[in-house]
Amino acid sequence: MGAMTIRALLFDVFGTLVDWRRGVAREAAPFLVRFGRDPDDAGAFADAWRRRYSPAMEAVRSGRRPFTKLDVLQRENLDDVLGEFGIDPAAVPAGGLDALNLCWHRLDPWPDVLPGLLRLKTRFIIAPLSNGNVSLVIDLSKRAGLPWDAILGAEVVRAYKPMPEAYLRTAALLDMRPSEICLVAAHESDLAAARACGLRTCFVPRPEEHGPAGLATDPGPAGEWDLVVPDCQALATRLGA
Amino acid sequence: MGAMTIRALLFDVFGTLVDWRRGVAREAAPFLVRFGRDPDDAGAFADAWRRRYSPAMEAVRSGRRPFTKLDVLQRENLDDVLGEFGIDPAAVPAGGLDALNLCWHRLDPWPDVLPGLLRLKTRFIIAPLSNGNVSLVIDLSKRAGLPWDAILGAEVVRAYKPMPEAYLRTAALLDMRPSEICLVAAHESDLAAARACGLRTCFVPRPEEHGPAGLATDPGPAGEWDLVVPDCQALATRLGA
Repeated sequence: MGAMTIRALLFDVFGTLVDWRRGVAREAAPFLVRFGRDPDDAGAFADAWRRRYSPAMEAVRSGRRPFTKLDVLQRENLDDVLGEFGIDPAAVPAGGLDALNLCWHRLDPWPDVLPGLLRLKTRFIIAPLSNGNVSLVIDLSKRAGLPWDAILGAEVVRAYKPMPEAYLRTAALLDMRPSEICLVAAHESDLAAARACGLRTCFVPRPEEHGPAGLATDPGPAGEWDLVVPDCQALATRLGA
Repeated sequence: MGAMTIRALLFDVFGTLVDWRRGVAREAAPFLVRFGRDPDDAGAFADAWRRRYSPAMEAVRSGRRPFTKLDVLQRENLDDVLGEFGIDPAAVPAGGLDALNLCWHRLDPWPDVLPGLLRLKTRFIIAPLSNGNVSLVIDLSKRAGLPWDAILGAEVVRAYKPMPEAYLRTAALLDMRPSEICLVAAHESDLAAARACGLRTCFVPRPEEHGPAGLATDPGPAGEWDLVVPDCQALATRLGA
């Protein structure tokens, strides 16, 4: 892939840039303690919440439900997760669950992300292309100092990845051909959908996405991607930024 | 207006943050010379182009035309402006007019804008709320180093200011009440529309928007705005940033 032909780098966020499991568990632990549960279950609590992520979006992707922002879907899923952990949502003081739901706005990036993006921004337009809603991605980016040129994603184009509209409408907003854009992601299903729309692809493995003892969503590249790099710093080096 | 109640500052761009007249004239001058015209007419050329700005959007606002990004409207208007200056669009080599049209992506900010935004970003979410399309605002912001937290605006919400949807859908994207958002603009019509939607308002006079010899769109505040400041640095000081 010639770096000169790429004008924009778009990044998946959950898992690829930020450690959602540790961030959610960090806030779930004191919550579990408050309700007499074991704080060591916080990681499993995060996993259970995340497992409901794609099925909830599927209702929107299939057209059964109008576009609904991820914060709303996650908040609905939270009630189900509480039930799974033996906590009655009605027993939680008002506002407590809405506050816990915002833990997804406070996730930390992997250590290579901020320095990598600062370098990549000097040569490319950089933006997130996340299924997270705009306010969620603004909040976590501002907290971490991520230097985006724009906040793009599912809510802006009103289509969840991996629907083709998520990638193609984003290219139209940028006034670029899909081939001028490279999607960077740790998940091969996302990359495959982007490639089917004509985007370039970069795989970044995130072996600890599901925790130190967990299996990565995609431990190594099974597909054929334009680029495979260990992290965002390496991507910057590879692209001469 | 209590600064603590404001969470986001949204900025009009053309005129309020960037000097469109000088930026357009700078690129129009060599173009006019190439076609045997007087480069001293470049300011008038910019004025003529800008005069067609609002009528072109009005076709979209009224529903006579589906949402069309500003770059496309400006490109159409350029053909008319050429005619006004005695240049046959068909005589311009292919691609020349598309290239000239992009001068709107290369406008310089007023001197207070970059330092003011850098300070304001430390306390508030800051974003443009422009009728310019996303790629236009990305390009001019990246060129000038404007440190936005997001790129919002007409194309994202598919409604041109001063339609209420332009302000209200933007507030919904931010998950904020309109009263938590302050619009900063040099144009009182924009501020009046924002105020009608419940946003806070800040007037910044830009006496040279129409050139050193021109009259400002709004030379002084006629309306009652929450804040009136001479520039973005003063706004930062006023808001404790």
